[in-house]
Amino acid sequence: MNTPPDHIEVIPSGVTAPLGFRAAGVHCGIRRSRRDLALLVSDVPAVAAGVFTTNRAAAAPVVIGRAVLRSGKAVRGVVVNSGVANACTGERGLNDAHAMTAAVAGQLGVGADEVFVASTGVIGQYLPMEKILPGIERIVPHLTRGGGTEAAQAIMTTDTYSKEYAVQFDLEGTTVRVGGMAKGSGMVAPNMATMLGFITTDLAITPELLQRALSSANALTFNRVSVDGDTSTNDMVLLFANGAAANPMIDGEDWRYERFRAALVHIMTVLARRIARDGEGATKLIEIDVQGAADVEEAELIARAVAGSSLVKTAIHGADANWGRIVAAVGYAGVDVDPASIAVAFNGVPILEKGYNIVIDEELAREALLEEEVTVAITLDRGSSGARFWTCDLTKEYVHINASYRS
Amino acid sequence: MNTPPDHIEVIPSGVTAPLGFRAAGVHCGIRRSRRDLALLVSDVPAVAAGVFTTNRAAAAPVVIGRAVLRSGKAVRGVVVNSGVANACTGERGLNDAHAMTAAVAGQLGVGADEVFVASTGVIGQYLPMEKILPGIERIVPHLTRGGGTEAAQAIMTTDTYSKEYAVQFDLEGTTVRVGGMAKGSGMVAPNMATMLGFITTDLAITPELLQRALSSANALTFNRVSVDGDTSTNDMVLLFANGAAANPMIDGEDWRYERFRAALVHIMTVLARRIARDGEGATKLIEIDVQGAADVEEAELIARAVAGSSLVKTAIHGADANWGRIVAAVGYAGVDVDPASIAVAFNGVPILEKGYNIVIDEELAREALLEEEVTVAITLDRGSSGARFWTCDLTKEYVHINASYRS
Repeated sequence: MNTPPDHIEVIPSGVTAPLGFRAAGVHCGIRRSRRDLALLVSDVPAVAAGVFTTNRAAAAPVVIGRAVLRSGKAVRGVVVNSGVANACTGERGLNDAHAMTAAVAGQLGVGADEVFVASTGVIGQYLPMEKILPGIERIVPHLTRGGGTEAAQAIMTTDTYSKEYAVQFDLEGTTVRVGGMAKGSGMVAPNMATMLGFITTDLAITPELLQRALSSANALTFNRVSVDGDTSTNDMVLLFANGAAANPMIDGEDWRYERFRAALVHIMTVLARRIARDGEGATKLIEIDVQGAADVEEAELIARAVAGSSLVKTAIHGADANWGRIVAAVGYAGVDVDPASIAVAFNGVPILEKGYNIVIDEELAREALLEEEVTVAITLDRGSSGARFWTCDLTKEYVHINASYRS
Repeated sequence: MNTPPDHIEVIPSGVTAPLGFRAAGVHCGIRRSRRDLALLVSDVPAVAAGVFTTNRAAAAPVVIGRAVLRSGKAVRGVVVNSGVANACTGERGLNDAHAMTAAVAGQLGVGADEVFVASTGVIGQYLPMEKILPGIERIVPHLTRGGGTEAAQAIMTTDTYSKEYAVQFDLEGTTVRVGGMAKGSGMVAPNMATMLGFITTDLAITPELLQRALSSANALTFNRVSVDGDTSTNDMVLLFANGAAANPMIDGEDWRYERFRAALVHIMTVLARRIARDGEGATKLIEIDVQGAADVEEAELIARAVAGSSLVKTAIHGADANWGRIVAAVGYAGVDVDPASIAVAFNGVPILEKGYNIVIDEELAREALLEEEVTVAITLDRGSSGARFWTCDLTKEYVHINASYRS
């Protein structure tokens, strides 16, 4: 289920849908023959918000991104390369990342501390700067209002399709646009995925509220995606707001803020689901929907445990309605819940009711599990809180991709 | 590395190696054509110790096992079936499990509360009591001093080989024997594995010290095995001591207790490694050996995170020396360690030294990873504590086994 809220209209493109943003994606030679360098720029200084990996082996771009945000200055954009993560590269990696922001800043005529950098790819290799720096020279003239789509392609690694999405909504007669792009695929886990996400809006909003909106939306979306449970060194989600929509500045948590936040949650949910669906080797999107919990925290713990279970993910891959594995995962989620009190359904087909009452119709269950999107509904009887979590099935192709040499 | 301590001599067989224990394993019809019912009995009342799953969806046999232990009474043995786990089966499951212990007790002429029961197999199905009860009638006359080997076969599920091991050591002129059997394979994770383990000894020891020895040995061995990170509903390790060796009763933590505990740790390490090596679909045993930690807790957290990483396990499966994935897993282990301070080696071949100093010789690294046992040594510079953890590679065969219908 993924219908946008009533006030939201889906529009084409992604990060360049909002006014005043340009982007480009080119091939600079890090990867053999695919776009591998993206640039996203706001024509005017923008306020920025960000969330970053919790991995202690944070890559150089994450270190720089945190510093840019801390400075509190308005920013101009982000340069992104795929193919090499610039993680576990020490001092030299930090210097390379700084050289990327400096090169972009020089071309744009702005300060190096107004530019973010993001990288994704193999850990433990140095960036091929002899390819990236000329690439940056070439990409700046390519920046266009329609370039979001190319940029979304250039940030892909093992993703099989690019992920972009945009919406607009009305704010007292002013149209506000929000657009995003993301990449995921492997090393994707909560807090956060190996994922990069970049979101733009032409909304005028204070930096504090922008960060608050991003952090709270992130907790419900990108932090609830898991492909393989490995938390990456490079995760980064940036949100830029340049005020080009010329709405009265949002400076409080009023209904206008809530409208924006709802749009943000919707966009990030769409991108999060696409990341899960496109997990390495995946053939299915799996949504774990826990309801009837005493609070959101326990709902999330349970959803996370079930989504992380290799046994659940392989069973669903095989369209095997092995509900016992789901109950087992609930049992080790760290929540004081009586497993005999839960009910389980797949895409609305009841499997297990309270009291270990097995109501499965094997044929119907199998049909439900053969669909490309499977919602595993887990109902507790402890309260009225819930949480959704997204993952994918675990397949031989995942093993194939990740057993191959230095993927 | 798995050499026994100096004072310990490896002897043939498993749970029936110690004096005064008999066992049997038969086919009663739960599984198509393999032994599926095991019985292990001490000729005289024995003291018992146990550790059980932390899963809240604990199966009926676990509920009964805890109660038997709590009673503090001497016990006579354990009956085990494979094929059906008797988990998530509610009241009826509990009644079935009680019926199993009652049937054994009736045959042996002992109390039903002196008999443990254990089950392993599919979750959420009822036991076929019409096969198990006649099976129990047939198995009792089969009990023999050499029956440990058959019993070890009868407790297997997707295990590809049975696991038994025994040792003896001298205690002031008295020979003491300790033997064990275990099964593992899938749904194997710390705290504990889907694993059943049964250990016997003819040592005379108090129940309190027996439990202490088992709990402390378990923390270093079976709680440090992971195949897929799924904590089972049925995990159980039982340790029986019947005093048949006629040593002076061990009633304090003296050198004699330590000798016994060392033998126990050794046996359980051997069995734990065999469980990891025989994980579903595994082609390799992977040992994660963390040293130089500030304390055992942080060493274990790091070893556990690396052992649990699907990306590390697939890379080693592909003999890809992708050390960046190891550093990334250390980074999300929840320990405040600087990833730039670690060193990594595979089977003694140095890969990464402190300060992200990459010293890898790809050819040598690949050769090391092609071996059937791979030790990943991770060295920190924070202290002198360490921990070892065992897992296996993640293969297409794991997916195949677990995607198939109701495995």
